[in-house]
Amino acid sequence: MTDTNGKGRVLLALTGWDPQVWVEELQKAAPDRPVVLTPNGETDPGIDYAIVWKQPAGLLSKLPNLKAIFSLGAGVDHVLADTSLPDVPIVRVVSPNLTTRMSEYVVWQVLDHHRLGPRYRAQQVNRVWDEDREQKAAGDITVGIMGLGELGTDAAAKLQVMGFQVTGWSRTQKQVEGVTCHAGAEGLDSFLASADIFVVLLPLTAETNEILDLDLLKRMSKRGPLGAPVLINAGRGGLQNEADLLAALDEGLLSAVTLDVFQQEPLDPESPFWSHPKVTLTPHAAAASMPSSLIEPMARQMDAFEGGEPLINLVDRKAGY
Amino acid sequence: MTDTNGKGRVLLALTGWDPQVWVEELQKAAPDRPVVLTPNGETDPGIDYAIVWKQPAGLLSKLPNLKAIFSLGAGVDHVLADTSLPDVPIVRVVSPNLTTRMSEYVVWQVLDHHRLGPRYRAQQVNRVWDEDREQKAAGDITVGIMGLGELGTDAAAKLQVMGFQVTGWSRTQKQVEGVTCHAGAEGLDSFLASADIFVVLLPLTAETNEILDLDLLKRMSKRGPLGAPVLINAGRGGLQNEADLLAALDEGLLSAVTLDVFQQEPLDPESPFWSHPKVTLTPHAAAASMPSSLIEPMARQMDAFEGGEPLINLVDRKAGY
Ligand SMILES: NC(=O)c1ccc[n+]([C@@H]2O[C@H](COP(=O)([O-])OP(=O)(O)OC[C@H]3O[C@@H](n4cnc5c(N)ncnc54)[C@H](OP(=O)(O)O)[C@@H]3O)[C@@H](O)[C@H]2O)c1
Ligand SMILES: NC(=O)c1ccc[n+]([C@@H]2O[C@H](COP(=O)([O-])OP(=O)(O)OC[C@H]3O[C@@H](n4cnc5c(N)ncnc54)[C@H](OP(=O)(O)O)[C@@H]3O)[C@@H](O)[C@H]2O)c1
Repeated sequence: MTDTNGKGRVLLALTGWDPQVWVEELQKAAPDRPVVLTPNGETDPGIDYAIVWKQPAGLLSKLPNLKAIFSLGAGVDHVLADTSLPDVPIVRVVSPNLTTRMSEYVVWQVLDHHRLGPRYRAQQVNRVWDEDREQKAAGDITVGIMGLGELGTDAAAKLQVMGFQVTGWSRTQKQVEGVTCHAGAEGLDSFLASADIFVVLLPLTAETNEILDLDLLKRMSKRGPLGAPVLINAGRGGLQNEADLLAALDEGLLSAVTLDVFQQEPLDPESPFWSHPKVTLTPHAAAASMPSSLIEPMARQMDAFEGGEPLINLVDRKAGY
Repeated sequence: MTDTNGKGRVLLALTGWDPQVWVEELQKAAPDRPVVLTPNGETDPGIDYAIVWKQPAGLLSKLPNLKAIFSLGAGVDHVLADTSLPDVPIVRVVSPNLTTRMSEYVVWQVLDHHRLGPRYRAQQVNRVWDEDREQKAAGDITVGIMGLGELGTDAAAKLQVMGFQVTGWSRTQKQVEGVTCHAGAEGLDSFLASADIFVVLLPLTAETNEILDLDLLKRMSKRGPLGAPVLINAGRGGLQNEADLLAALDEGLLSAVTLDVFQQEPLDPESPFWSHPKVTLTPHAAAASMPSSLIEPMARQMDAFEGGEPLINLVDRKAGY
């Protein structure tokens, strides 16, 4: 069902985010498209599209006319968590703005560990002048990227420009310029033995749930210029077993971690991560895109879809991403 | 005068650095080349080459056979500070290892300011979860590079790969791919108005001495996403008037600075820079090259020179760099 102006109706269903900015962006991007907000949307049979961030479970199944779901994240675990999801296409975010920002984050954090950021900041606090001439250049360091999708491949290219060696791991075998690519369960051990710094850009699926556990961390066996490996998780908190991460840090299996994501967000103020000396944390801000850069392409996809074109950036529901 | 094996003799004249590692590297790179250390070298008339870091003033003028001076830094202010320097060619360091490491540093520090590193670290200490959705992407930020030489042009290219807009300033007009280039005194004001983050990679010369003073800092007039501009000096401490830098920070003319270099190094433990909340400092470590990567090319240049080839990477003594 479309409105009298021929434009399908949009439901905005967000949990934990202020909807106002998103409504405004949608009205800017598509002034003549009607927008409905939860909780009023639930029973509105006229909804054609849902733009969602952690929509309430069961909500979307009540919309008989729903034609597509647009995820406000590149990851769709927050959408698929709803077990009664109707069988309509799910569009995820693939945007140059988001990709660029994620690569900024990855290169920033890789360099911060490689260039001894935590050590120099501690020296500054203690007024210690110690240059350490034994530092290696980027070419002596291998960065291993878990997840060679939209985000992982861009980060891999930029890390190589900075001089790093890069390896990667994905579900299906990839060919990425300059990257030693490993795939699947068979390729995991060789991948885990290959790198000094690991960057996790996997989606959260049934297969990857808590993949970062003590068993896997033990298999990160390289001891390079930084000592034990460094882990940077900018994928999803559900990828990490948090008790195991802390144990690995305390046992010296990991020399440091950067975490942008957590099992529970916002992170509990009592969490030991806040004050752990080997933890750098950011508040799920690795690729906090400008709302306009997410909404504008969704509005254009809706227009194109109504003009008879296929939707793009669709999720493979069986694979879970 | 050369030794019986036909290999010219090398004097190593270093101040403040342990000579042992350098002697060893030289013996590795040129096992049959005789090496002499100060203080024994002073009166040795058989010296053909001097490898120097802040050599004692007057020392080199006492070497009648000196054919070339090799600076252990890319900058040669430490060599030219000696007013009685003999009129022989001065070779400076131009090395991919050093250039790569400097670009690592520049990209690291630019990203640390752009991606709000200091703010997130303070939030971590205070257990505050605040994502701040209003962050800009790199493309909204202009980085202005003072000094478009070996180091500045490589940093410019890598910053562009990360998505930043880049402008630059040099003595003579340059053409650098993708960079809006300004030059000389005439071009300084437009350059200073162009950028959100300034990266200083100038040599220290009579013309650039304390160029970073209050007058110049006031002309950094852009107020972009980060507020007042950020300054990163990885050139030389002598480029900055340190009282003026502190005043500019306190008056809000600069929102933050990263300093790798200081008027006096090691930095005085009483310096206000250590504990200033808007200062990130590193101990002249931006491009601490591996000794081998510096010495090996010097040994090869000596061999080539003795084989009749011209020396390369020579300093223009009139220009002072
Ligand atoms: N922190 C943040 O702010 C933020 C922002 C955006 C996104 N993210 C996260 O980043 C993730 C990746 O985004 P993207 O756009 O790059 O996704 P994508 O294009 O779908 O790429 C996912 C990659 O992970 C691989 N993968 C999936 N399941 C796997 C498995 N079981 N074993 C090995 N590899 C597996 C895929 O392998 P194939 O190539 O074989 O399919 C692919 O290479 C998102 O899912 C989201 O969770 C976080
Ligand atoms: N912190 C560290 O660890 C570290 C390590 C290495 C080097 N450095 C410093 O970095 C400096 C730059 O190294 P480099 O190899 O890139 O030097 P370079 O190739 O000689 O380049 C110097 C650049 O500065 C410009 N310049 C010189 N005098 C100027 C003036 N009066 N006004 C405007 N521009 C001027 C030059 O202009 P033209 O192009 O017109 O000649 C050139 O673009 C070195 O001198 C050294 O002090 C620091």
